[in-house]
Amino acid sequence: MRRKIAILGATGSVGKSTLDLVERSSERFEVVAVTASVNTEVLADIARRTGARLAVIADEDRLSDLEGLLAGSGCRAAAGGTALIEAATAEADLVIAAIVGCAGLKPVMAAVEAGRTVALANKEALVTAGELMTDAATASGATLLPIDSEHNAIFQCLAGSNEADVARIILTASGGPFRTASAELIRSATPAQAVAHPNWSMGAKISVDSATLMNKGLELIEAHYLFGLPSERLDILIHPQSVIHSMVEFIDGSVLAQLGSPDMRIPIAHALAWPDRIETPAQRLDLAAIARLDFEKPDFERFPALRLARHALETGGAAPTVLNAANEVAVASFLAGRSGFTDIVPIVQEALEEADFVNPRSIGDVLEIDRRVRSRVESAMKASCN
Amino acid sequence: MRRKIAILGATGSVGKSTLDLVERSSERFEVVAVTASVNTEVLADIARRTGARLAVIADEDRLSDLEGLLAGSGCRAAAGGTALIEAATAEADLVIAAIVGCAGLKPVMAAVEAGRTVALANKEALVTAGELMTDAATASGATLLPIDSEHNAIFQCLAGSNEADVARIILTASGGPFRTASAELIRSATPAQAVAHPNWSMGAKISVDSATLMNKGLELIEAHYLFGLPSERLDILIHPQSVIHSMVEFIDGSVLAQLGSPDMRIPIAHALAWPDRIETPAQRLDLAAIARLDFEKPDFERFPALRLARHALETGGAAPTVLNAANEVAVASFLAGRSGFTDIVPIVQEALEEADFVNPRSIGDVLEIDRRVRSRVESAMKASCN
Repeated sequence: MRRKIAILGATGSVGKSTLDLVERSSERFEVVAVTASVNTEVLADIARRTGARLAVIADEDRLSDLEGLLAGSGCRAAAGGTALIEAATAEADLVIAAIVGCAGLKPVMAAVEAGRTVALANKEALVTAGELMTDAATASGATLLPIDSEHNAIFQCLAGSNEADVARIILTASGGPFRTASAELIRSATPAQAVAHPNWSMGAKISVDSATLMNKGLELIEAHYLFGLPSERLDILIHPQSVIHSMVEFIDGSVLAQLGSPDMRIPIAHALAWPDRIETPAQRLDLAAIARLDFEKPDFERFPALRLARHALETGGAAPTVLNAANEVAVASFLAGRSGFTDIVPIVQEALEEADFVNPRSIGDVLEIDRRVRSRVESAMKASCN
Repeated sequence: MRRKIAILGATGSVGKSTLDLVERSSERFEVVAVTASVNTEVLADIARRTGARLAVIADEDRLSDLEGLLAGSGCRAAAGGTALIEAATAEADLVIAAIVGCAGLKPVMAAVEAGRTVALANKEALVTAGELMTDAATASGATLLPIDSEHNAIFQCLAGSNEADVARIILTASGGPFRTASAELIRSATPAQAVAHPNWSMGAKISVDSATLMNKGLELIEAHYLFGLPSERLDILIHPQSVIHSMVEFIDGSVLAQLGSPDMRIPIAHALAWPDRIETPAQRLDLAAIARLDFEKPDFERFPALRLARHALETGGAAPTVLNAANEVAVASFLAGRSGFTDIVPIVQEALEEADFVNPRSIGDVLEIDRRVRSRVESAMKASCN
């Protein structure tokens, strides 16, 4: 029996890597549903290649395009939010949740509520709706398999361990492009400098998060919800080479670490085949060639985003949602040249201080908080510019 | 229900570390039997402290001493080979096999044949009788838990994985005191230089094995029998800091590593509590303080013991037994100042070339081969000195 896979966000980078692996092991996997945001041509091509039975385009205006492209293929075309939910809850053994941003929240929640095994690449699901997601997973019996390299590493190191046996989780961080930069240089950082990530090739927004270390703060929040450990048992360690993707320290003093080349196909393959393994074409790690791994403590003074994210995690409720939304606005503003690099954290901090939201009780609440924070922060920034 | 523990070799360093852990978690563990080679006073003290019901001294001449020391304690004193077997097969949930050298072979085999879970610190069991031990374990359903840091690390990284999912095992090696030494300097190495191990405090014989890298060759053989992987999937990587105790590379490109402080109580605690974990007083690993880990390929020219051990592993049959016995004689000769450091490998190589033994079919055969090799090598060395 082949494992049935639904790929939400099939045209993005995680979607492409997933398809690469699925097509290399076509005897093991069957793609049943694929979705995309706007790219009908690529989506239709993927649907035809994989033999998926359902292809969903998020943008309803593109439905007729998709229908035309899929004519005679045997694959049904659909569009819009309800159709995305249908794809997320299709009869699948594994749902790859790779829709970027808050657009992924409702489909991910639908898959979780349906008790599916969900391979999670969408960061917002756990950062902005962590408690809702994990409560729903507990209720439905859904399994969450993290795909990003750090949490996948932790998942592998835990290997089903009892929480009581775990002393702490150690998230590694490259330190970003400003790891060795002075506070003064960081203050004058340009978008071009901030997006020059040393180890991974990534989009501009996440590259800036990597430069502020906010990405590690967001991952700290994700780790809390994924693995159930409190803030004080979640540590961050700077490791410039990003070869060790994260670690788990056990109560006996043993530390398990997962290492690998910087290739997303490794964690995706892990989620696809779990609890088995499949071959990948990823470059094998050659530690003798790498020769040296370095480690240092994070500097909370030059990288205050870490402290702020931990504060949001410890506050709980709507705070992580506020943190994430305000950060997105602040980063966009920095990338657009409208504010400085070191304005990002104060903007987010102010948003957190002003937030007075009750705890979100549904994805609808989360999306509403997200929308209101973005609107407030944008207004505040415009006001301060005038 | 407390876990019942039999400790074979209770007065040695592994025995002492085991007792330290057992006494810290006395609500979890009950010591039922303890043995020692010659030290009746310490053995009797251990038996009284732990409330063991059986204490065995290997040296039969010391039985009456032991009986005197245990009078009124409720612990039965016994001595000799048959009594050691009785301790090894006592009603225990876990047998700690920490007798040093070939004296441990018969008790370990008895525990394995009795289907016990055996925490293995005795290196000879797998180096000289690997196939016999693993065949017996398969037949009886015994479980072998490795206690030495490298194999315990591999066991933790494998965490019950299918062999087909494992690409290779990577044994780390400190490189010993001559890692950066020239071939010329190695040729003139003195015993004092050879026993100066950089990371672990160990006995003289094993320190010399660490300097020749023969210890890593012996561990390669152990890894083969413990984990069932062929020679070509067992690699060695030099890692001077010995922080990563070993690694497993999976077919998807993931590498899992176990790290820790150099404290034997960590792997012993793992075996004691497996599949759970217990707290240990071992120092927690602080990678930021360690700051840097290095890796390099082993140099088979300066350290030919690695190639020789791999050859013995691939030859199989009696070859690993011959390798181990000849190495012990050659190391003893070097430590006694009767031969040079770089004579060790040629002596072992000659013993392997001259060996014409049929495959050992019992521990008796192994002990006989071991005895004959030692005798031959000693005679040959005396002849070459005259």
